[in-house]
Amino acid sequence: MKILVLNCRIYSVEFELIEMPAEKVLAKGAVAKIGLKTGIINYDGVCGKRKRVEPIMDHHSAIHRIIEILHTEVLKDISQIKAVGHRVVHGGDVFYESVIIDSHVKEEIKRNIELAPLHNPYNLKGIEAIENLLPEVLQIAVFGTAFYRKMPARAHYYAIPKRLVQQYGIKRYGFHGISNQYCLFHTAKLLKKPANKLKVIICHLGYGASVTAIKNGIPQDTSMGFSPLGGVPMSTRSGNIDPEILIYLMHKGWSLNEISICLNRESGILGVSGISDDMREIIAESKKGNKNATLAIEIFCFSIQKYIGAYYAVLGGADAISFTAGIGVNSPFIRRKICGGLEAIGVSLDGAKNRRAVNREMKISGKNSKIAVFTVPRNEILLIARETAKLLNETAEE
Amino acid sequence: MKILVLNCRIYSVEFELIEMPAEKVLAKGAVAKIGLKTGIINYDGVCGKRKRVEPIMDHHSAIHRIIEILHTEVLKDISQIKAVGHRVVHGGDVFYESVIIDSHVKEEIKRNIELAPLHNPYNLKGIEAIENLLPEVLQIAVFGTAFYRKMPARAHYYAIPKRLVQQYGIKRYGFHGISNQYCLFHTAKLLKKPANKLKVIICHLGYGASVTAIKNGIPQDTSMGFSPLGGVPMSTRSGNIDPEILIYLMHKGWSLNEISICLNRESGILGVSGISDDMREIIAESKKGNKNATLAIEIFCFSIQKYIGAYYAVLGGADAISFTAGIGVNSPFIRRKICGGLEAIGVSLDGAKNRRAVNREMKISGKNSKIAVFTVPRNEILLIARETAKLLNETAEE
Repeated sequence: MKILVLNCRIYSVEFELIEMPAEKVLAKGAVAKIGLKTGIINYDGVCGKRKRVEPIMDHHSAIHRIIEILHTEVLKDISQIKAVGHRVVHGGDVFYESVIIDSHVKEEIKRNIELAPLHNPYNLKGIEAIENLLPEVLQIAVFGTAFYRKMPARAHYYAIPKRLVQQYGIKRYGFHGISNQYCLFHTAKLLKKPANKLKVIICHLGYGASVTAIKNGIPQDTSMGFSPLGGVPMSTRSGNIDPEILIYLMHKGWSLNEISICLNRESGILGVSGISDDMREIIAESKKGNKNATLAIEIFCFSIQKYIGAYYAVLGGADAISFTAGIGVNSPFIRRKICGGLEAIGVSLDGAKNRRAVNREMKISGKNSKIAVFTVPRNEILLIARETAKLLNETAEE
Repeated sequence: MKILVLNCRIYSVEFELIEMPAEKVLAKGAVAKIGLKTGIINYDGVCGKRKRVEPIMDHHSAIHRIIEILHTEVLKDISQIKAVGHRVVHGGDVFYESVIIDSHVKEEIKRNIELAPLHNPYNLKGIEAIENLLPEVLQIAVFGTAFYRKMPARAHYYAIPKRLVQQYGIKRYGFHGISNQYCLFHTAKLLKKPANKLKVIICHLGYGASVTAIKNGIPQDTSMGFSPLGGVPMSTRSGNIDPEILIYLMHKGWSLNEISICLNRESGILGVSGISDDMREIIAESKKGNKNATLAIEIFCFSIQKYIGAYYAVLGGADAISFTAGIGVNSPFIRRKICGGLEAIGVSLDGAKNRRAVNREMKISGKNSKIAVFTVPRNEILLIARETAKLLNETAEE
């Protein structure tokens, strides 16, 4: 059966048409610059890669064009699409797993807009466009937060008054959940053991970055918290900092908006290096002797080492550390920097394997490493397709 | 020689007169409720403990009364006081060690008032009172931040734009430095090894709490940061949280002052438990089955476990973990909760010793523990006296 997966963002829609259970990608692409006259459609299908520039009014138009293209190029009939799986960033408190979308689910996604104003509204637009364009098709929501809903209370709550939880929902939601679920599944496969019998630390190091501790399939803690700003330093985000810093800056006359922009878009490795938000450029500059670039790398890696050490301790050991997402799978240098400082907990890399592991799923730890170390390229789309197929099958059986 | 140590706070002055190098406390006490008609003078000297209530106008009056009392009760002549050592909370970027106070030093303490508005002004008042009352005496400043000035850059800086460091001095200063110096010295003594050949993790768990990683005598990282609000959850302070939480609350209409009060005075174990800021009461309530009290303890201990794990990893192992300050030395329960979850890094307590260790300096780890665990009652006053005596001797030799 053919499943369409959509990842609707503020200015773009990513799509893949996947044949399940074969997991064969039939077509994939993205519509970008939504709302502009110079909208861009990138498409990779049976006839190779193509790019078109045309005005894309809104998310509905974007998805309309995606369906048109799929119909023209790969599908005999549009009814071949058996279900549409959506990435939905924020499932709030309600959703512990992927669900079939109905009016109640849509209400909940809407209710969580306040917690994810840059994501949930566009996820919802995608769902409504499909309702309109393919009214018969089953739609599934796969949430970025659902994976963390079973975290123990000690990790779920901040040390703040309870009324902030009750009144505003301020707690650790966790993000990168879909990426973590995918990575956990593949880590277990690489270890040839069931995920629910493993202790795994996942380092999702991309433009956003997080570290997650998982025991027997259930997250025990994760570095990101109430929002994707928390945890480790990222490309442009500060990660956790002393909250007094925000209070101090506001006393100095900074506006709320200035602080938000500073911590979300001007901090992280961009802020420290003063050069770039791209780790590849930072590494290149550091190798040329730029001290700020070197410091940015050190702060980034040090923070991740500390999370790994912390999670190793509270998990009571670890079977595996897995690196995923852009920096995680593409930078042997960063992995070496991180793992090179973790001898105390028994981590050692195989240098040659680490260098070979570029955007590949493989083991990179040395023979004597007490903890297996892996690289696992992220594939949230495929995880969404799997979840969608599973729910579709369950529905068919009923 | 007799040394007077003063710890001047916003509403109180703590004092001790110490015979050095014998480290014999000749008299000690505190003047509290400064500025009120019901000022309180507590005094413990050769004639036992006494308490008086009388109006204390300001810090100058408080210190005047302290000197009067010392003169009446223990000193033949006021000139027997050879030096006065002051606890100064914030030494900013300048001071790497204790210094003899001159006009330049006073200027620097004043310059750092902005970074420690609740501490440095009162430290300065104490210094000026002594200048006025004992104009001949040598004064020494022992800084709470000086210990951390040699921390590596990766721990010293946040992942924020460099201009925030340059323009506002926003970086990790670290606090509890005097307590940490004292605790490190005594940990080394207990291990019978020089402090500059050890890896030590110090858990200063009092009303404020911090965890510090020290290697060869030099801090490598510490949980408190720009201010004493950062790091682990404390009695009423939140510790580090996702900075987006502050932005979110302000968008919800909270004022800066409300947020500051909430995170500084209504959070931590008080906020989570909804009961008390006193760990003894929280533990008692938890034992009676109060779930919020139990959660407060779990959040507190979990956070400290994570810091210990993180520091164990980045130090490349640890020779000792030392507990100091109120909760640290007085709560076998909390130490058991923390250390009980650290088997993965080789920590095991001797249950009987742990129970016996109440406000005593002793080893509490089991025979098979890979890391020695100690309790070390804090004594910042004595550390200040030692620093003061050292500088006094150096001056005499010149």
